[in-house]
Amino acid sequence: MTFTADDYAHRMQRAAQVAADKGFAGLVITPGPDLVWLCGYAPPAATERLTALIVRPDAAPTLIVPALERGDAEHAPGAPALSFVDWRDGVDPYGIAAPLLDANGRYAVSDNAWALHLLGLQRTLPGTGYTSLTDGLPMLRAVKDAAELARLAAAGAAADATFDGILRVRFAGRTEHEVAADLDALLRRHGHSQVDFTVVGSGPNGADPHHEAGDRTIEPGDAVVLDFGGLLEGYGSDTTRTVSVGEPSPELREVHDIVRRAQEAAFQAVRPGVSCEEIDRVARQVIAEAGYGEYFIHRVGHGIGVTTHEPPYLVAGEQQSLVPGMCFSIEPGIYLPGRFGVRIEDIVTVTADGGQRLNNSVRELQIVA
Amino acid sequence: MTFTADDYAHRMQRAAQVAADKGFAGLVITPGPDLVWLCGYAPPAATERLTALIVRPDAAPTLIVPALERGDAEHAPGAPALSFVDWRDGVDPYGIAAPLLDANGRYAVSDNAWALHLLGLQRTLPGTGYTSLTDGLPMLRAVKDAAELARLAAAGAAADATFDGILRVRFAGRTEHEVAADLDALLRRHGHSQVDFTVVGSGPNGADPHHEAGDRTIEPGDAVVLDFGGLLEGYGSDTTRTVSVGEPSPELREVHDIVRRAQEAAFQAVRPGVSCEEIDRVARQVIAEAGYGEYFIHRVGHGIGVTTHEPPYLVAGEQQSLVPGMCFSIEPGIYLPGRFGVRIEDIVTVTADGGQRLNNSVRELQIVA
Repeated sequence: MTFTADDYAHRMQRAAQVAADKGFAGLVITPGPDLVWLCGYAPPAATERLTALIVRPDAAPTLIVPALERGDAEHAPGAPALSFVDWRDGVDPYGIAAPLLDANGRYAVSDNAWALHLLGLQRTLPGTGYTSLTDGLPMLRAVKDAAELARLAAAGAAADATFDGILRVRFAGRTEHEVAADLDALLRRHGHSQVDFTVVGSGPNGADPHHEAGDRTIEPGDAVVLDFGGLLEGYGSDTTRTVSVGEPSPELREVHDIVRRAQEAAFQAVRPGVSCEEIDRVARQVIAEAGYGEYFIHRVGHGIGVTTHEPPYLVAGEQQSLVPGMCFSIEPGIYLPGRFGVRIEDIVTVTADGGQRLNNSVRELQIVA
Repeated sequence: MTFTADDYAHRMQRAAQVAADKGFAGLVITPGPDLVWLCGYAPPAATERLTALIVRPDAAPTLIVPALERGDAEHAPGAPALSFVDWRDGVDPYGIAAPLLDANGRYAVSDNAWALHLLGLQRTLPGTGYTSLTDGLPMLRAVKDAAELARLAAAGAAADATFDGILRVRFAGRTEHEVAADLDALLRRHGHSQVDFTVVGSGPNGADPHHEAGDRTIEPGDAVVLDFGGLLEGYGSDTTRTVSVGEPSPELREVHDIVRRAQEAAFQAVRPGVSCEEIDRVARQVIAEAGYGEYFIHRVGHGIGVTTHEPPYLVAGEQQSLVPGMCFSIEPGIYLPGRFGVRIEDIVTVTADGGQRLNNSVRELQIVA
């Protein structure tokens, strides 16, 4: 199942329109998720050689591409709607780009465009202005269509199957790296083409929310944070569950219950019109009222789609309203330094009148061997 | 074998000095090869959360880091020389960065810094100016010290062993993907921790210099371009050889001989004081005089170090002089559309009075089965 040339043409048309509505002369899109989403093209790597898609309301979208890579680009599924301009080593690619841009226009540019390229455009066209997509058009990819929702649901189902599988493996006496390898294999077995992260944070390592997996041998009595995801048919999964190796301590049970209530409360707050920051606030309030507010040290969630981190961000200060079709994580956590951590995360989509989880594996504290 | 805290402290001091000599107030370094090289720190991924190392001649280098990741960063091998400033979700990280920068200073910024972050700094400190490292301090990482040269030589030796190994596998009747998997396995067997590319361009696919590997079944009589490399102990390899499956045609022999002579002539031209573009010109002249000038469609080479693509670039217009300790590829090619391609590539380092190849596998046209 792939998107058609028409799907990509439609996305580029809509992007041009959305940009124009916000006063932009167009978009400057560089390799990465924006480019994949808009035209299906992914060069082997983002490099010092400029590749940029210029999307404008008044002209066909144009892909500037190194001559070396033009052949590949012409085979992208969105290519039928594109014009191509190539350039060879030794030529100034920003001079090639210049005639495609309004010399006094303001452009929305991919967040991950290289500074090298942005500075090249600023230098060549000093009258142009730039705003990151996240700041200028944060909602461009945020509202998913039915085909995208189907892919995200498939990725979520695969993550559910992965968690079911990991509950059957041995934890005690094995290293975090070994359990992480099991997660990787399970995600791939259940259809993922790419695994982006397999966090296994056991005992004190679980108190570091960005710990990945290490050489620590997991012990009976450990809490273990499992946070895993990647891409399936180009769309992301991202699930966290925290398990107990053998019988949990009363404290672990209590902390897990608080996080579970915070996650549930935040989920119940999801509906169109509610602000992103409100979802964060609801989760934070449950944890604060239980006395653990200072141990919830990150935002409650992030959007997901062709990447595993994108707008909307569910964080204090983000006043964007929820819109049906948005998809994002809800992942409160409590991190007790030097001791253990608990995080519970689902991907949620906004429906006409509430929210729907795309992950449905059991959220009660599970005991593993 | 790892670099010490002193090695990193020394690199940061030197970078600050080099920047000051060029009139910069300092450097703004984001995740990627520059950050690894300067302080040994590599967060799991470059993301929308700002991580930036500020290096100044007048103060200790400071790493701005998301609070979530501070623990990891403090364990980086270069951490002893660093101050840390962390920030939590919901805070404006550019406001955190501002007091660390001269509001009217000009900074050299990592090529691959995200536009999101550069625009955030430009917005918060409108009096600051930015130049990419490649444009402003292209030689910062270009001249390798003895320990770095030893690593690059080890990576080159592993690439040589990989080519020796691939000569023994079967080509005819197998797909490009299968041979690429053999290259990957050989690179890893010979010590690579990361494989960045395994190009197998057989027959007409070899005429596309950026073709990677596909489903095409390799046939007797094919020319096959093999371009492979990655990182060994953090430093890059990058070698290309073109082989013949069975007896080569007279034309393939002729084209291969021209490319080999071009590569040799360019190598012989390497010595301190010669310009980068001169090396490109020498190779190009051999190919042009043989009547194939229009089929050599890329620059002759690129620097290599903690990345497999970095300054110096050996390309028309690059007047930078060669300096002892620089390391780069020399990789002329001839690409006959729809038919076949030939490329020969070695990594070369500049010595006191010439050049030395870090790849030494056989360059004569090899026949494989």
